[in-house]
Amino acid sequence: MNVVEGSEGMIKLYEDERFDYLLNDSTMKIIQSPSIFSYSLDSVLLASFTYMPIKKGHILDLCTGNGVIPLLLSKRTYGQITGVEIQGRLAHMAKRSVEINKLDDQITIINEDLKKLDGIIEQSKFDVITCNPPYFPTLAKTEYNKNKYLTIARHEVCCTLEDVVKASKLYVKPGGKVSLVHRPERLVDIITLFRKYRIEPKRLRFVYPKKERKANTLLIEGTRDGNPGLKILDPLYIYDDHDVYTKEAKHIIYGSKN
Amino acid sequence: MNVVEGSEGMIKLYEDERFDYLLNDSTMKIIQSPSIFSYSLDSVLLASFTYMPIKKGHILDLCTGNGVIPLLLSKRTYGQITGVEIQGRLAHMAKRSVEINKLDDQITIINEDLKKLDGIIEQSKFDVITCNPPYFPTLAKTEYNKNKYLTIARHEVCCTLEDVVKASKLYVKPGGKVSLVHRPERLVDIITLFRKYRIEPKRLRFVYPKKERKANTLLIEGTRDGNPGLKILDPLYIYDDHDVYTKEAKHIIYGSKN
Repeated sequence: MNVVEGSEGMIKLYEDERFDYLLNDSTMKIIQSPSIFSYSLDSVLLASFTYMPIKKGHILDLCTGNGVIPLLLSKRTYGQITGVEIQGRLAHMAKRSVEINKLDDQITIINEDLKKLDGIIEQSKFDVITCNPPYFPTLAKTEYNKNKYLTIARHEVCCTLEDVVKASKLYVKPGGKVSLVHRPERLVDIITLFRKYRIEPKRLRFVYPKKERKANTLLIEGTRDGNPGLKILDPLYIYDDHDVYTKEAKHIIYGSKN
Repeated sequence: MNVVEGSEGMIKLYEDERFDYLLNDSTMKIIQSPSIFSYSLDSVLLASFTYMPIKKGHILDLCTGNGVIPLLLSKRTYGQITGVEIQGRLAHMAKRSVEINKLDDQITIINEDLKKLDGIIEQSKFDVITCNPPYFPTLAKTEYNKNKYLTIARHEVCCTLEDVVKASKLYVKPGGKVSLVHRPERLVDIITLFRKYRIEPKRLRFVYPKKERKANTLLIEGTRDGNPGLKILDPLYIYDDHDVYTKEAKHIIYGSKN
């Protein structure tokens, strides 16, 4: 078993876990596990896309997984960041990553179901809610990924898109922002649910693997009780014609600035 | 007063009217008028974007204006095309353009309010409905364009977005397509209304004036009673870095192929 220094003593690494450097900042480490959870490019894109208050404020990351979004956002804000994760094993990874990076003063990880946060976190409190939710509707049980951790992270087993939007509406303050990353196939559902819960879509950006391809990811930000008026940002391409990261993708993934 | 040969005699051109060649086909002419109505690039983009049955079928173009979309679509299909226009003056321009191009057998122009088509055209009949509707919500009367024709064509004075979607639902057959061109700011309204009237959005394409700019136009196609699953097509750029039409824009605007 590996150990590493945390803010209050040594942090243990369990079987199959490893330390990775967070891609865009070689000073920051994150605990990952190929068999349990590794963060995806989508989380990095969301952490870069979302509006972020710089000096203060409260940020809530739902479905935080191993805490990648709170860790990345800590580079963009002095505000307080809370991450909520239903899976104990993942929340434990996130908590230890926070300790390793000595970010206990800024980041709090809560191991709870986002539908049961009543009394745990305050309603209408947060300036920003972020979420990289499970993308896929619940399938027949036989189709689940055999790995329980990945099934819950990827499929709407423990929370549906509506649960995410409903919780976002509950905890974001009026005028606050809700930012999601998701698949383009679900845009219609996202927009319908945002409207239902009075989160008005304001910024939408599509991510394309490369030119002349369909978009495979979307980034959307809405404002609670906002006025209508959506902006479609310029497309984000990940690879150029030579299958190399585009300048912008490189900047988001490796760059240290916002 | 100018005259030109039509299918059943000479066609008159009224004051302030002129013949233009339809940009993408120098064999086709259209009557335009700077003070009454000239077609826009948006109609050309929609006529290129929309699904079109080739050999047969029924196509309905709502808010047809001077008939630009039926004229352009006649190059892509042998099907029957009906255009509906509420403004008599514009419908008259459209009718005469149909005659000039000797397309009377394929295109029918109806001068009627799209909310009053009951008994005039058959419900659930059309394979495809297209529409380039007025983009702007109704303003205070003092803000109207002083030109009555342009006000009706551009503002939701005589028909709202909901009127368009409702009429589309009424006249398209189950499984048929509804294609609109509109402004990105209205995407949320469009998607909400499509869902309300059970037209499931299936293809969405954003048009960008050039790179690194926000989108200024959207093209959307839905299927009546279709299953969820939206595709975001690759972006369409109109101008390149030198402010020259991109290859694709040139192809749509000048090209003779689909």
